[in-house]
Amino acid sequence: MRNPIFTKLLSQLPATVPFVGPETQERARGALFDARLGANESVFGPSPKAVAAMQAVSEEIWKYADPTSFELRTALAEHHSVDIDNIVVGEGIDGLLGYLARMVVQEGDDIITSDGAYPTFNYHVIGYGGILNKVPYKEDHEDLDGLLKAVINTNSKLVYFANPDNPMGTANSAEAVQGFIDLLPDTCLLALDEAYIEFAPDGISPRIDVGQSNVIRLRTFSKGYGMAGARVGYAIGAQEVILQFEKIRNHFGMNRAAQAGALAALQDQEWIEHIRDQVKHGRDQIGEIAHDNGLSIIPSVTNFVAIDCGRDSTFAKLVLSYLVAHGIFVRMPFVTPQDRCIRVSVGLEEDISLFANLLPKALSAARSGS
Amino acid sequence: MRNPIFTKLLSQLPATVPFVGPETQERARGALFDARLGANESVFGPSPKAVAAMQAVSEEIWKYADPTSFELRTALAEHHSVDIDNIVVGEGIDGLLGYLARMVVQEGDDIITSDGAYPTFNYHVIGYGGILNKVPYKEDHEDLDGLLKAVINTNSKLVYFANPDNPMGTANSAEAVQGFIDLLPDTCLLALDEAYIEFAPDGISPRIDVGQSNVIRLRTFSKGYGMAGARVGYAIGAQEVILQFEKIRNHFGMNRAAQAGALAALQDQEWIEHIRDQVKHGRDQIGEIAHDNGLSIIPSVTNFVAIDCGRDSTFAKLVLSYLVAHGIFVRMPFVTPQDRCIRVSVGLEEDISLFANLLPKALSAARSGS
Repeated sequence: MRNPIFTKLLSQLPATVPFVGPETQERARGALFDARLGANESVFGPSPKAVAAMQAVSEEIWKYADPTSFELRTALAEHHSVDIDNIVVGEGIDGLLGYLARMVVQEGDDIITSDGAYPTFNYHVIGYGGILNKVPYKEDHEDLDGLLKAVINTNSKLVYFANPDNPMGTANSAEAVQGFIDLLPDTCLLALDEAYIEFAPDGISPRIDVGQSNVIRLRTFSKGYGMAGARVGYAIGAQEVILQFEKIRNHFGMNRAAQAGALAALQDQEWIEHIRDQVKHGRDQIGEIAHDNGLSIIPSVTNFVAIDCGRDSTFAKLVLSYLVAHGIFVRMPFVTPQDRCIRVSVGLEEDISLFANLLPKALSAARSGS
Repeated sequence: MRNPIFTKLLSQLPATVPFVGPETQERARGALFDARLGANESVFGPSPKAVAAMQAVSEEIWKYADPTSFELRTALAEHHSVDIDNIVVGEGIDGLLGYLARMVVQEGDDIITSDGAYPTFNYHVIGYGGILNKVPYKEDHEDLDGLLKAVINTNSKLVYFANPDNPMGTANSAEAVQGFIDLLPDTCLLALDEAYIEFAPDGISPRIDVGQSNVIRLRTFSKGYGMAGARVGYAIGAQEVILQFEKIRNHFGMNRAAQAGALAALQDQEWIEHIRDQVKHGRDQIGEIAHDNGLSIIPSVTNFVAIDCGRDSTFAKLVLSYLVAHGIFVRMPFVTPQDRCIRVSVGLEEDISLFANLLPKALSAARSGS
C-alpha cells in the first residue's frame, strides 16, 4: 500500500538518521558511558536560574506554551538589538533548518554546503529533494571562497555554513564572513549557523544587520547556554524572511518549561562568562593531553577540540572505537582529510581525567591495529 | 528577493496561525485570564510523579534527549501491546500531523476531513499544497459515512478524523469506526486522532491492529496525562508506516525532560483513573451550569463540553466575547451550525465557579446585543 499513499519523494528517501545518539550506543555496548564528550553538549549545564525556571514551570506543564514565544523573542530581540519580528524560535537549530529547507528547497534544487559539515542540514535538504553540492574544507576551515563559487556556478538559492565550524572547531573571521555576504547574490539565502558563537572570541560574528534580507542567523540554547535537551533554537533575519516561518512551522512545537528556561538562561549572562572561562580551560586541557601523547590539535574557538591522530581515517576510527568501547563517548569528522581527527568535547575534570588515562591505551591499540 | 529564493508553494501560503494562544489574548486585553478553559488543557495537571521526573531531568538538561525515545517507546509499546517499531514519538500530535502531511500530501492532492474539525490538520495539509475536502458534521458528530464517501469520490490518499471529536466532544462507537476502517480503500490512510481517548468510556476506540497498514492512531500526553506544555505525542501504526517518519522527522526534536515526564506519567495509570473521575465531575458541573441558564449541552466524552447557546453563531460569539473580556478563556467551534455553541474545558472548582457567575451576565449581554 505504500506507493499509492506516500509521496514519490518519500519513497525515494533512505531511512537515515543524522546522528546515532549515545543512548543507542550505550544500549549496544550494554553499559552507560563514563564520560559524555561526543555531542558538544555543555557538561557544565545551564545557569542554575534556568534550571530553577524549568523546574517551576514543570508544575504548570498542563498549559500549552505560548505559540508566539513572545517573552523569549522579546528578550532575544533586546539582546541582539533587533525587533521581535526579526526572531523566530524553534525546536533547536535542527528544527529551524528543517523549516528553512521546506521554505526554500524544491526537488532538484542545487544547495551548497561544506563537505563534512552538519549532517542534519544535509538530511533536511535531501528530505525535500534538494541536490547537495559539497565544497571541501580548506586547511580545516570552511572554504568561503569555494562556497561562494559553488553558489554562483549552480545559481543556488541556499548556502549553509557554520561559523565557528563544527566538527573542526575553527572559524572564519567576521570580516571574511561579511565579505562573503557582500558578494553573495541576492537570489541566494545564507543560513549562517552560529551555534557555537558564545564560546568564540570577538571578531568572529559579523554585525547583525537585519536589513540583509538574504542572511539568516541560527543560534541555540543547546551549546553555550547548556540546554541541549530543552530544544530551543532561534533564527535572526529580515522580517520578510522570518515571517515565512509562520506559514509552515509547528506553532505549538515548543516546550513551555524550555521557553522559560531559555529566558532565564539569556538573562544570566554572567553564567555565560563563567562558562566561557571553563570551556577555554577545558580546551587547554584537551590540547595538553593531545600534546602529551605526541598529537596535535586543530586550534578551536568552540567547546570541543579536534585532535589530529596523525594518521588516516582508519587509524582515527580505531582510536575512536577503543574510546567508545571503554566508556568515553566521542565522535569524529565524517570526511577525508578531516577524519584523521577525533572530536572531543570539553568535559568536567573527571571526564577529562578518564580521557587522559584512556587515550594512550587507545592509541596503542590503534597502532597495533586492533 | 522572496520569489527567487522561496518555493512557489510557500509564496502562495497565507501567514496563518491554527490557534491564537491565550497569552496573545492576555496581552491584547492587558490582563491575565482568571480561568483558562479554552484549550482543553487538563487543569488537574500531570501525575506528581511526572512533575518530579521533569524536575529531576531539568538538572541534566545539558544532555540531548535520546533521539529514538527508546525508553518511552518501549513503555508505550508494552502499554498498547504492540512492538516498539509500531510507535513513533513526536512534538505533540501537531508535530506528527505535520510529518504525516509531508509524507502523504503532494500539491493538488485531495485530502478529507470534517468541516470544523482540527485546524492544525488543515494547516499542515494546505502547507503541503493539498486540497481540503470538508465533510459537514451530522447531528454534532463526525459523519463517518460522509467521510468515507468523500474518500471514494475523490480517490483520496488521506482522511482525518478525531474520535472522540473536538470541538463537539461527541464520539462514534468503536464498531462504527471499525466499520469505517473495514470499508476504507487500502489506497487511503486514516489518521485517527484519539487525543481525548483517556477521558472516554470503553467502546469508543476500536482495537489496535497494527496489521491494518492504512490506519495510524494519534495519541498524546497533552490531554488526559495533563502535559500539554511538554509536547509529547505519539503515533501507533504498521511498522512500514511508522518507519516513514524516520526519513523526515526532526530526530532531535524532543525535550529530554518531557520524555522522562511522559514515561513517568504513563507508568502512573492510577492518576489517569483519578483524572477520569475528576473530569466526569467537571463535565457534570458544566452541564448543570448550562441547565441553570436554560441552555443545553452536547453530551461529551472528553474534558470539555460544548454548550448550545440556543441561537446562532453571532449570539454565541457575543457570549464568548463577554466571557473572554471578563477573564475566562474559552473557545467556540468554527463552522455553522456547531458555532451556535461555546466550548468550555473542565476546570478546577474555582474556575467553574467563576464561569457559573459570569455565564448569566454573558448571556444577558449577548441578548441585549452588546
